[in-house]
Amino acid sequence: MVGGSGGSVTVGELLLGRLHDLGVRHVFGVPGDYAMDFIDQIMTFDGIDWIGSSSEFNAGCSADGYARVAGVGAVVTQFGVGELSTMNALAGAMAESVPIVSVVGGPMLEIMRQRTSIHHSLADGDSERWIRMAREVTVAQASLTPECALQEIDRVLAECWSQQRPVYIRIPGDVAIAPVSRPSRRFTRPDPVVLPAQLDAFAAAAQRLLAGAERPALLVGNLPIRLGLGAAVAALANERNWPIATQMLGRGLVDETDPHYIGIYNGAESPAPVREVVEGADVLVCLGATFFDWNGLFTAELDPARIINLRRDGAVVAGTCFAPVSMAAALDRLHEMAASRSVGWPSAALLHDLPEIDRASTDPIRQERLWSAVQDVLRPGDILVSEVGTAFFGAATMRLPAGTTVLAAPIWSLAGYTTPAAFGAGIAAPDRRVVSITGDGGIQISPQEISRMFVFDQHPIIFVVNNGGYSSERALEKAVGEETQAYTQIPNWRYSEIPAVFAPEGTFVAHVARTEAELAGILAGVDGRTDRLTLIEVIVDPTDLPPGLPQWSQEASAFIYHAQFPAPASLPWGGLG
Amino acid sequence: MVGGSGGSVTVGELLLGRLHDLGVRHVFGVPGDYAMDFIDQIMTFDGIDWIGSSSEFNAGCSADGYARVAGVGAVVTQFGVGELSTMNALAGAMAESVPIVSVVGGPMLEIMRQRTSIHHSLADGDSERWIRMAREVTVAQASLTPECALQEIDRVLAECWSQQRPVYIRIPGDVAIAPVSRPSRRFTRPDPVVLPAQLDAFAAAAQRLLAGAERPALLVGNLPIRLGLGAAVAALANERNWPIATQMLGRGLVDETDPHYIGIYNGAESPAPVREVVEGADVLVCLGATFFDWNGLFTAELDPARIINLRRDGAVVAGTCFAPVSMAAALDRLHEMAASRSVGWPSAALLHDLPEIDRASTDPIRQERLWSAVQDVLRPGDILVSEVGTAFFGAATMRLPAGTTVLAAPIWSLAGYTTPAAFGAGIAAPDRRVVSITGDGGIQISPQEISRMFVFDQHPIIFVVNNGGYSSERALEKAVGEETQAYTQIPNWRYSEIPAVFAPEGTFVAHVARTEAELAGILAGVDGRTDRLTLIEVIVDPTDLPPGLPQWSQEASAFIYHAQFPAPASLPWGGLG
Repeated sequence: MVGGSGGSVTVGELLLGRLHDLGVRHVFGVPGDYAMDFIDQIMTFDGIDWIGSSSEFNAGCSADGYARVAGVGAVVTQFGVGELSTMNALAGAMAESVPIVSVVGGPMLEIMRQRTSIHHSLADGDSERWIRMAREVTVAQASLTPECALQEIDRVLAECWSQQRPVYIRIPGDVAIAPVSRPSRRFTRPDPVVLPAQLDAFAAAAQRLLAGAERPALLVGNLPIRLGLGAAVAALANERNWPIATQMLGRGLVDETDPHYIGIYNGAESPAPVREVVEGADVLVCLGATFFDWNGLFTAELDPARIINLRRDGAVVAGTCFAPVSMAAALDRLHEMAASRSVGWPSAALLHDLPEIDRASTDPIRQERLWSAVQDVLRPGDILVSEVGTAFFGAATMRLPAGTTVLAAPIWSLAGYTTPAAFGAGIAAPDRRVVSITGDGGIQISPQEISRMFVFDQHPIIFVVNNGGYSSERALEKAVGEETQAYTQIPNWRYSEIPAVFAPEGTFVAHVARTEAELAGILAGVDGRTDRLTLIEVIVDPTDLPPGLPQWSQEASAFIYHAQFPAPASLPWGGLG
Repeated sequence: MVGGSGGSVTVGELLLGRLHDLGVRHVFGVPGDYAMDFIDQIMTFDGIDWIGSSSEFNAGCSADGYARVAGVGAVVTQFGVGELSTMNALAGAMAESVPIVSVVGGPMLEIMRQRTSIHHSLADGDSERWIRMAREVTVAQASLTPECALQEIDRVLAECWSQQRPVYIRIPGDVAIAPVSRPSRRFTRPDPVVLPAQLDAFAAAAQRLLAGAERPALLVGNLPIRLGLGAAVAALANERNWPIATQMLGRGLVDETDPHYIGIYNGAESPAPVREVVEGADVLVCLGATFFDWNGLFTAELDPARIINLRRDGAVVAGTCFAPVSMAAALDRLHEMAASRSVGWPSAALLHDLPEIDRASTDPIRQERLWSAVQDVLRPGDILVSEVGTAFFGAATMRLPAGTTVLAAPIWSLAGYTTPAAFGAGIAAPDRRVVSITGDGGIQISPQEISRMFVFDQHPIIFVVNNGGYSSERALEKAVGEETQAYTQIPNWRYSEIPAVFAPEGTFVAHVARTEAELAGILAGVDGRTDRLTLIEVIVDPTDLPPGLPQWSQEASAFIYHAQFPAPASLPWGGLG
């Protein structure tokens, strides 16, 4: 731990101390020669553990999964060849608002200053290329020198926290070991910025809009999760009797078994009762909601004049933005001024009412039955990690138990995210159960991180939904009446053999379910099996799609891919603004 | 095939036609929704095959491996989430001069123009981020519209070919299917540019330097391989009796069994006879040689006043550059004017004279014996793919049979490159044998592509040298007297179980060798086993390093990592310039 006692520390120790102050307790990474000085320092630093990853891509996804559970994450790689493979995950963290610090071990300052031709570079002397790339996928960047280290570290970490997005720090090897003064005080997470006059102006405008509102409602996205506002949102809903809808992004913020929760709002693809509550609201309070093509941007029938939109650092009332006003402060004021809703609403609705699995059936497993069976496996407090594609739509059909944390990436939709993110979540919360669901396409991108789960004796339940290829693409083809193309098929692995590559028999359980009865039998035993890693391959027909995906594909084909670009129903193009 | 007959084609077909004209016969990639229109067109295009990859990272590495064998490669991914994972491989192709066309399927033009918030983006309406990133790892970029398609495609493909480096083309879905005029003529690879007056001036300057030279020699890097100059180099060496040294980069250009070949030049780490010939040359003709930290930049004792350096597009005589003069034209003139060397030289030398493996020994396998055993496996015409780290230094100890193609990435040194590159090489040359060598760290990054080898019934020999972690890092620690850190250890997989995840028994052979006798026995049977994929795990002690690595680590520790940044012996910092 660094801070407060005079004397000197190295820049590496200083950085580790500040990361610790920020809340980082584990860093994911892959060693590399330029990063060795700094990684050596991690190994001896008290309070932050090094967690080795199989690849930098996986390390980035693990840091994302960790950050979504622990509040902030970090990934350590080396210059050039290492850091480039983290950038996809950093872009995901930008899109989905996840605070991650990417620390890159760089060559010695003098090597870079002299433009020396070195390995892990383009041998052209340009050491700034990777920082220029990092600018596109992080909100702040620093390249440390002993002189600037404290100021730059604090600036960048403050941006990471206040923007809840990834940042980038390069620490050259010689800088890592250079001595600097021990800082006189600890780093503290910056408080949200609120200008009282703006907050008052917001409150006055909101008050006018809310006056006489009979059918107010809440719509939540992902930022309230990152900002820890779950309890505040629930308090408003409970005390003022307002219904809450979530975007797919916002799942896990509110207790889905609470009567105020009504379901997932997704524009025209929403269940009718949810649409009625959200689109029929006379005032809709949005918290960190983001509209994009997949979640209703083209089909949401919302009137901006009736929307109060709370953003991270500003609050918008019917199109007028008051800033700086933090989401927490604005929410607090809304709670104070909100009247209780007396008009009732339909009870919580799922988009699809799915049949239960038939424990006696030897029929192949249909997706509509699979997802209700998976839902029954979930327990309060679980961490559910679900991949883009089949698993994403499958998860949308479930009602989640209270306290479920959901790791998914609906905006960035990075295939291969799930397995390393599940590993990261397991590091962040070793006492919680992790349930991970991928398709076969997703697991083929990053199966390696199952090996790292064994290193830490993690016991997740890993579902691999094997439908022989890329179902999202198949659904899109089907929507426009095309034949299935060969490129949507992928090699059929023996998924249940994967754990045996990594660990000895007895340390895991691996199943293959082909029929409803087999799946029911396997799942019946799952409760008692959390003493070992459990992998369940569920074989479904390639032509069978999860509920919701065919409808979505129809819509997407019309709006995004093939048809004339449409005018939106009533929202401006940028969504909520 | 597109060209010559009037009428119209789609932009996608136009692009495919031009890629075919450039020499592309296979594209590696991963489907994604924004790329489906273009991939659909690939599936029906006559003359270019779609080769599915497990991940975009692997697709990029496969395209690189393919391009090094076939002459040019292509990778197809989708906007944002797909293309970001190819950028590491594209950076490698920049560093190592490999022509690859990266084609990215993008959202419809109107979606991008309206800055619509879409998935696989940062939901901020900025669709140009990924092109800005691609600028750092490709030499030319285009975003196609129907209006600019022909001109832009031809411009970018011409740069790919003349610079022998990667380029980037974005094709939005609606542009892919838009009709344009059928081009009136085919794309032709641009000829190297030569200004005759400059060529003459070069020749005159070279003539003055060569006059009276008694000990001329050749030093070759990677560009002559890409430019197909192997025969021209060999002709000069043979007809004028000049000795040839190669950089690690340049292996595979010349026949290492030819008496004119003297070995690998690597600065102070070279065998003494090689150093004597190269540093003792009164004129050293370099062809596409690149000096960087790992291959002698700090230790090469070369006098620029005695160097004729042929670059891709310019020829340098004792520091004076004549351009535009292509390497082929300059080489041709040198060949004409060169006098025969009458002074002899030592016969070809390896850095280490390694003991043969003892077929009766039950001792653990030492690296010094492993590499001579692997060398005995190689046959003329093999493709040898070797990973950074242990395999890289191991390969340096071998004398290669005639006609061996070497795939390695000494500059970029991307871990995980080997397995997908070997797959790509197998697609490019299905009739040649591929021998791939990785360490355990490398195979853990990209084992998936073994699955794709089965799809195409490839029968490579895959060596996995299992020494329980990252040996390059261990060697660096040892060089500075540090203890081995825990982060250099990685989980111990059962590597021989990997093929069973992908393919049924009988379609592969998997071995584990722990002793010299076991390894000898396995290798004795390898000749007869090319009817199946063969994986050989070779277990070596974690503390045992390949010959050369300890010395290199000592040097690197002094020059690159820990010590004072030194002044070079005599070369300018930029190397040859």
